[in-house]
Amino acid sequence: MRSRKSGSEKVSADRSGILLFGVGLGPGDPDYMTVRARDIIASADKLVHFCKKGSRGNARATADAVLPPDPEREIVLAFPVTVEANVGDAAYDGPISAFYDAAAEQLAGEMAAGRSVAVLCDGDPFFYGSFMHLWRRLAHRFPTEVVPGVTGMAGAWARAEAPITWGDDVMTVLPGTLAEAELTRRLKDTDAAVIMKLGRNLPKVRRALDAAGLIGRAIYVERATMAGQVVTRLADKADDIAPYFSMVLVPGEGRRL
Amino acid sequence: MRSRKSGSEKVSADRSGILLFGVGLGPGDPDYMTVRARDIIASADKLVHFCKKGSRGNARATADAVLPPDPEREIVLAFPVTVEANVGDAAYDGPISAFYDAAAEQLAGEMAAGRSVAVLCDGDPFFYGSFMHLWRRLAHRFPTEVVPGVTGMAGAWARAEAPITWGDDVMTVLPGTLAEAELTRRLKDTDAAVIMKLGRNLPKVRRALDAAGLIGRAIYVERATMAGQVVTRLADKADDIAPYFSMVLVPGEGRRL
Ligand SMILES: C[S@@+](CC[C@H](N)C(=O)[O-])C[C@H]1O[C@@H](n2cnc3c(N)ncnc32)[C@H](O)[C@@H]1O
Ligand SMILES: C[S@@+](CC[C@H](N)C(=O)[O-])C[C@H]1O[C@@H](n2cnc3c(N)ncnc32)[C@H](O)[C@@H]1O
Repeated sequence: MRSRKSGSEKVSADRSGILLFGVGLGPGDPDYMTVRARDIIASADKLVHFCKKGSRGNARATADAVLPPDPEREIVLAFPVTVEANVGDAAYDGPISAFYDAAAEQLAGEMAAGRSVAVLCDGDPFFYGSFMHLWRRLAHRFPTEVVPGVTGMAGAWARAEAPITWGDDVMTVLPGTLAEAELTRRLKDTDAAVIMKLGRNLPKVRRALDAAGLIGRAIYVERATMAGQVVTRLADKADDIAPYFSMVLVPGEGRRL
Repeated sequence: MRSRKSGSEKVSADRSGILLFGVGLGPGDPDYMTVRARDIIASADKLVHFCKKGSRGNARATADAVLPPDPEREIVLAFPVTVEANVGDAAYDGPISAFYDAAAEQLAGEMAAGRSVAVLCDGDPFFYGSFMHLWRRLAHRFPTEVVPGVTGMAGAWARAEAPITWGDDVMTVLPGTLAEAELTRRLKDTDAAVIMKLGRNLPKVRRALDAAGLIGRAIYVERATMAGQVVTRLADKADDIAPYFSMVLVPGEGRRL
């Protein structure tokens, strides 16, 4: 927790004095952006997005519907290594820390010159977001606003037509990167679950769900609310190919009134 | 999971043929409504909101900023019993089921006459939402669209300036209604936690956090993004008075890169 801020500022991005914005753009459908997110991305001096080397960033693609590419305004932060590497791998952590350091200094330079920067974030900025690594380097140095967003999982359960928690259900969010035994143990001990960061972890996640007796309740959602969305029972998915934007939902079965 | 739907319909609420909308309005600040939510509440024939007897519904208050009261258009569903009663109490479940039955039939009557109804939801409709009890009675009978929203917890961690999950953190969402021993056990076994439905459960929640060694990390957030917002370390909160719109956050401490 940082210092307290009033919840009722309604000034425009331009006049508020805020220089760093972390803007949640929601799960992908541009209509699921908030009004505040639209206002900020329309008015900030610089638009920042992350991407993998050689590909367009997803958050920037979400914004395309309202903001066509504008090279003058954009700052592209290209990850030096694949984002699917496991956190904790030495081969990943070193280069990625140096990358965030350099990215933060680049944005600090813009802000020191008086230009506001809006970092485009998939879903919500403070829920497993890359933005957090910039925020922790910059938010104590520059006036900052974080705009919450609709999470990818909320987009997924809406499109799966699967209410996720009922009554007193406990919900557990699990990264698919966890060890199989830990996934199994935690899946056995929850009412509802969301498994994020699937990618190459899908075979392991499938085995854990099976061991926990949950494979029949599991729903696989790929690219929720984006072009190319897939929603299917996991049991009906024939292959184990899962892209970066995919997750498994296990809806709760708590009290129906 | 119900039947699959395409993710790319962009028609207006009026022309889509959809009759039942569950509209997530976000945590309270009207700027955190999505563009889709704004469009639907502007165009639906009937606006539906839940409230406690004798008080204005919170979701309707969120919408006030963009839609002044309009008695002709509104359907108010007043809970017959206090919403703080514990699910599972016989004294609660009977009347509340009958209430949802009657509410569903009232909305069915509107839709059978060709009028679209938009149910205003706090946060996200499918995350512990009252709307779910209408949805399960109506979604198989009328064309339905659920509009995901920014959850109350995402509003809370943005305003607390507290990123909730880092790296491979596991996040657990716990209703404050759980037994003290279960709260303690689950708090000991997670990286990050959100404790919802505080109300009169706060003294118990405090004890559980203490037993789990987490009291120093706990942040209390009341009315996140609404008028009268409170953000404070739980350890600094002198009383045990918590209104309906309050929660505790325990931010994760996963890998910082
Ligand atoms: C680094 S996390 C970022 C989460 C994001 N900040 C949010 O609020 O949803 C990336 C993971 O989110 C999940 N995800 C996010 N958006 C998604 C979507 N639209 N469809 C499917 N999965 C999604 C995937 O599991 C992906 O591996
Ligand atoms: C029945 S649940 C509904 C949750 C809602 N559907 C959502 O997505 O946030 C009600 C609980 O949500 C939490 N809550 C929702 N919005 C909140 C806000 N703006 N500030 C604090 N707590 C909130 C409180 O813990 C409250 O008891």
